[in-house]
Amino acid sequence: MKRMVMQISYDGSGFRGYQKQPDARSVQGEVERALAKLHKAASWPSTSSGRTDTGVHALSQPVHFDTPLAIPEERWPMALNSLLPDDIHVRHTETAPEGFHARYGAVAKEYRYRLTTARERDVFRRHYVYQLRHEPDAERMRKAAAYLLGTHNFASLSSPRTDVEDKVRTMYAIDVIREGEEWVLRFIGSGFLYQMVRVMTGTLLDIGYGSREPESLPELLEAEDRTLAAKTAPGHGLYLAGVDYSEEALQARLAAKIRPQ
Amino acid sequence: MKRMVMQISYDGSGFRGYQKQPDARSVQGEVERALAKLHKAASWPSTSSGRTDTGVHALSQPVHFDTPLAIPEERWPMALNSLLPDDIHVRHTETAPEGFHARYGAVAKEYRYRLTTARERDVFRRHYVYQLRHEPDAERMRKAAAYLLGTHNFASLSSPRTDVEDKVRTMYAIDVIREGEEWVLRFIGSGFLYQMVRVMTGTLLDIGYGSREPESLPELLEAEDRTLAAKTAPGHGLYLAGVDYSEEALQARLAAKIRPQ
Repeated sequence: MKRMVMQISYDGSGFRGYQKQPDARSVQGEVERALAKLHKAASWPSTSSGRTDTGVHALSQPVHFDTPLAIPEERWPMALNSLLPDDIHVRHTETAPEGFHARYGAVAKEYRYRLTTARERDVFRRHYVYQLRHEPDAERMRKAAAYLLGTHNFASLSSPRTDVEDKVRTMYAIDVIREGEEWVLRFIGSGFLYQMVRVMTGTLLDIGYGSREPESLPELLEAEDRTLAAKTAPGHGLYLAGVDYSEEALQARLAAKIRPQ
Repeated sequence: MKRMVMQISYDGSGFRGYQKQPDARSVQGEVERALAKLHKAASWPSTSSGRTDTGVHALSQPVHFDTPLAIPEERWPMALNSLLPDDIHVRHTETAPEGFHARYGAVAKEYRYRLTTARERDVFRRHYVYQLRHEPDAERMRKAAAYLLGTHNFASLSSPRTDVEDKVRTMYAIDVIREGEEWVLRFIGSGFLYQMVRVMTGTLLDIGYGSREPESLPELLEAEDRTLAAKTAPGHGLYLAGVDYSEEALQARLAAKIRPQ
């Protein structure tokens, strides 16, 4: 058996999240169904860098699996894509380095939250961008984001519905990027708790609209109380953009510029 | 009763085309259901500029209906949008000019066909852009398009599955617009027969790939034989961009520049 790691993208609109579930369509369920077919087995396990919620998308999510098949690295994407539904796409596959683990080996992750202040509703983007009713103040949001950088306990800014006990994470970058009506909030951190990006987004928006102050964030973090933060932003604006397994990869990610769209 | 005309946009992915059908979800079915609710009636008729096929989108399609309700013009969109599903959007509504008819009054229509030569499949655009495997020759396609301008019988370049007997239409502009990997074919004409834009697109692509010559088009048109043209391009790349009811509106449309995306 050798371990392969693939990068997948998916449109989260048609899934009840990443994780396999008995009665709902999930990304993991579809990925493992394709792997099982390819291996002519009843089922085939895989391990992802993490989970995403209903409606959340992935641009590049690592998934590893072990296989006895002698398919060359570059053939795996075509082999799997021919078996996958059209809302999941294997972008790249390679033999995993010795000791690789998609979840435990992750050094950092990047999420992006897409927003638009376009006045008219766009039916073509209803599953892909969160449309705001009013324009928030980007400078206030940037000032607020600075308070979230570094290492904190993020219990106030994530869902309490979790088994995870250690809620300390490190944020390396939180950028508020705007071009006209199109916005993207970019979060790069050591890891993210359940719904953490969506609660941070909701809270940054509250601040952008003036209903909270940027300076209130240190106190909010210290309280370790979810009920004090804003409401969770909807899942459909959120994208897992990528996961890094080395300090070099993280540094390259931090140096890369992105634009809305 | 006064006549109102609205401009609607819709994502065609979830519909079996525009026209109402007993057993399938259609745009007209949803629009008339919303109108019926608003009028507290069992049903409420509407008339569109025309029909679109399964998977075909609209950026701005005119639909008229007669109503006894005294809702101010500018309130109609909100009233209807609150009753419509989220893949249809009323963009604008106004009182129709005397004698207006969405179908019979149309002077010209614009369709756009979106193409991409991006190598990697993009799950987020699978319902919105037709992805090509190879890059066609834009210059050959432009040369071919010039032969389609003006007034011709388009029987060779439309589906024979139609009751329409007069297959003579006038093409005012056919533009092949390209920015890097993103393309749009823009068709402005007096009217379009069933599947005509998709058959023209397929045929222009054949020419772009070198399997037909631009100079073969006059003979193809003269033959009035659908079997001689290329296969129909898929519906999901096609958008009804707008319909004009006056020569001035058509001239403004012809003067407007558009870009892919």
